[in-house]
Amino acid sequence: MRELSVKTESKIVLLVVDGLGGLPMDPYGRTELEAASTPNLDALAARSDLGLSRPVAAGVSPGSGPGHLGLFGYDPLRFRVGRGVLSALGVGFDLGHNDLAARINFATKDEAGKISDRRAGRIPTEKGQELVELLNENLKLDGIEVFLMHEKEYRAVAVFRGEGLSGALADSDPQRTGLDPLPVEPTEDSQEAQKSARIANAFVERADEILHDEHPANTVLVRGFGKHPALPSFEETYGLDAAAIASYPMYKGLARLAGMQLLKEGEGIAGEFETLRAGWNDHDFFFLHVKPTDAAGEDGDFERKASVIEEVDAQIPGLLDLGPDAVAITGDHATPAKMKSHSWHGVPVLIHSPYTLPTAEGFGERACAGGSLGVFPAEEIMGYLMGHALKLNRFGA
Amino acid sequence: MRELSVKTESKIVLLVVDGLGGLPMDPYGRTELEAASTPNLDALAARSDLGLSRPVAAGVSPGSGPGHLGLFGYDPLRFRVGRGVLSALGVGFDLGHNDLAARINFATKDEAGKISDRRAGRIPTEKGQELVELLNENLKLDGIEVFLMHEKEYRAVAVFRGEGLSGALADSDPQRTGLDPLPVEPTEDSQEAQKSARIANAFVERADEILHDEHPANTVLVRGFGKHPALPSFEETYGLDAAAIASYPMYKGLARLAGMQLLKEGEGIAGEFETLRAGWNDHDFFFLHVKPTDAAGEDGDFERKASVIEEVDAQIPGLLDLGPDAVAITGDHATPAKMKSHSWHGVPVLIHSPYTLPTAEGFGERACAGGSLGVFPAEEIMGYLMGHALKLNRFGA
Repeated sequence: MRELSVKTESKIVLLVVDGLGGLPMDPYGRTELEAASTPNLDALAARSDLGLSRPVAAGVSPGSGPGHLGLFGYDPLRFRVGRGVLSALGVGFDLGHNDLAARINFATKDEAGKISDRRAGRIPTEKGQELVELLNENLKLDGIEVFLMHEKEYRAVAVFRGEGLSGALADSDPQRTGLDPLPVEPTEDSQEAQKSARIANAFVERADEILHDEHPANTVLVRGFGKHPALPSFEETYGLDAAAIASYPMYKGLARLAGMQLLKEGEGIAGEFETLRAGWNDHDFFFLHVKPTDAAGEDGDFERKASVIEEVDAQIPGLLDLGPDAVAITGDHATPAKMKSHSWHGVPVLIHSPYTLPTAEGFGERACAGGSLGVFPAEEIMGYLMGHALKLNRFGA
Repeated sequence: MRELSVKTESKIVLLVVDGLGGLPMDPYGRTELEAASTPNLDALAARSDLGLSRPVAAGVSPGSGPGHLGLFGYDPLRFRVGRGVLSALGVGFDLGHNDLAARINFATKDEAGKISDRRAGRIPTEKGQELVELLNENLKLDGIEVFLMHEKEYRAVAVFRGEGLSGALADSDPQRTGLDPLPVEPTEDSQEAQKSARIANAFVERADEILHDEHPANTVLVRGFGKHPALPSFEETYGLDAAAIASYPMYKGLARLAGMQLLKEGEGIAGEFETLRAGWNDHDFFFLHVKPTDAAGEDGDFERKASVIEEVDAQIPGLLDLGPDAVAITGDHATPAKMKSHSWHGVPVLIHSPYTLPTAEGFGERACAGGSLGVFPAEEIMGYLMGHALKLNRFGA
């Protein structure tokens, strides 16, 4: 890609409808996307290349991290991104390549030292903020800087800054109540991992002292350790000046990992498309992330998921009015209402440009299964977008 | 392949219709192949496996070199073939594994030393031949043999023979007129590349002296440096005695890279099929290359491309009369008239043998998109042909 990509005036849009892929509730029925009334997506599909993407590997349900890395063209098996890194980037922390990030849960420990509530009674956001400030003011570790940032309710993120840290650490979260918190253990035999485990355990010990008189949030659980994966940026790989429009911290974090500039999003789906219009002249690649489809799928709410898809459909004419040169509309994975979870199923992909081989009358899983892109790895979507936007030189003589 | 292939009496034909893949001129229309009247190909498709091949990588438009390497079963990302190598093989030069080949343009340099015409006014072929002879007679370089061969008009090819040469060299062609020619620079930090750059620059200097009084061809530009990529031959890989029928030097060069024997082609498409008939008893694999489809696509001439496809169609009954055991009909890449260039789009593939799973009534991009081969890498076509010709042993117990 790096060898072939050229800078041009053409503009690309990658519209990610989170958890777009679905299943029929009964085998003879229609999927969420098929059941939704989507006149604009259907008309676009009839002028587009279609296919089904496979996010990570056969049968493997991806998290949002690997799902998006694949869409951005990175090999999700090669680039592992810890939950802590996504949280740190999501709250806007300028994570350096030597920083070690971890997710923090405020939790409740009983008198016997057992975890009695892994979420500290879901303390309100204001309380969480207050506790993060308390920790930031009082927590000092020898030879290492610690930054604590609040996320939401009982959730926060810690960043450890120092030389020779490693993300090869297991969580302290015992996953069940009534158990002791686990000491943080290295998951590989290296000096860096051992040193990092010592630092993480000292951090938990010191936090326990500071939170001693608090209730219910009198301890912290740490999990999702990781370092910045040092992905090559969109600018390096594709020569693209990329912008991201996303309303959730994790997706902002993923976009920042790829070197995208975050645009200030408006309210709801319509607001995100408004942001796209406002920023249209300033970038040549736009990642726009729509979240509520996934949430509806996770809730098992087929109708609500279909209705969010209809809300996206209503924005398609406005998107096309901007005159993008190449557009992909897809998801990061399937979230079938039937399964109430992410799944491994094929994700519908629509790629539109003037250079397409249309195969169907509408947009849906089964139309995509017979499309001219076939069933293909999600990692290839960026290559197709670059080709359709005429941003790749010919390969070889 | 090498482990499983067995020599049998069965015969394989790989018919490459260059740039076969196409697109509809408007999204609701038909492609060149779909629009062409192809009763013979359609009848054959109805008894064949169909699929769409992806030449090199998603979104990447291949040159003819990588396109054909894929069809011959080589990984085009692993085996890079410089233009100079293809030219040398194409003119019939017996390129050794240590030889360094480069493409030569005769060009015009003005009094200030700037390139004023990169093609020396497109001197006629006779003049080009004369200049190549002049250079061959007078050009001696210390410690290295140089062979110059004429191609056509202002184009020639140079082969440098000596120990420790490298193809990691940039072109001297400045790509635009009004600029100084570039000194040949190594593109990697190795002694071989530095030595080779010195030789190439000495060659240009000496050629300038010899051509000093010529006009308009008073200098040479060198480009497309490369060495023989040392591909395993068809005989080694597949146990095939392979023959090639191609009318253009580059395709002859590609066939020779794979160790195929070149058959003397007749006039035009019909002549190529005549050559196939004449050589039928002497080989068990035939690569037959049809060029004018690609040329018509490059010209943006949809009708002419369709009509060349019809010309190929007329040869199909004669081909089948020979009784081939397995036939593939495909292209090395798409050249949609709509794009006037090679493209990344899927290429129709038809594989015929007695052992097929037919899925459609005719041959076309959309029929192939839904075929039993799916959308698949072009590199796999040779495997299918070997299987269909019953030339592969079972793998494992």
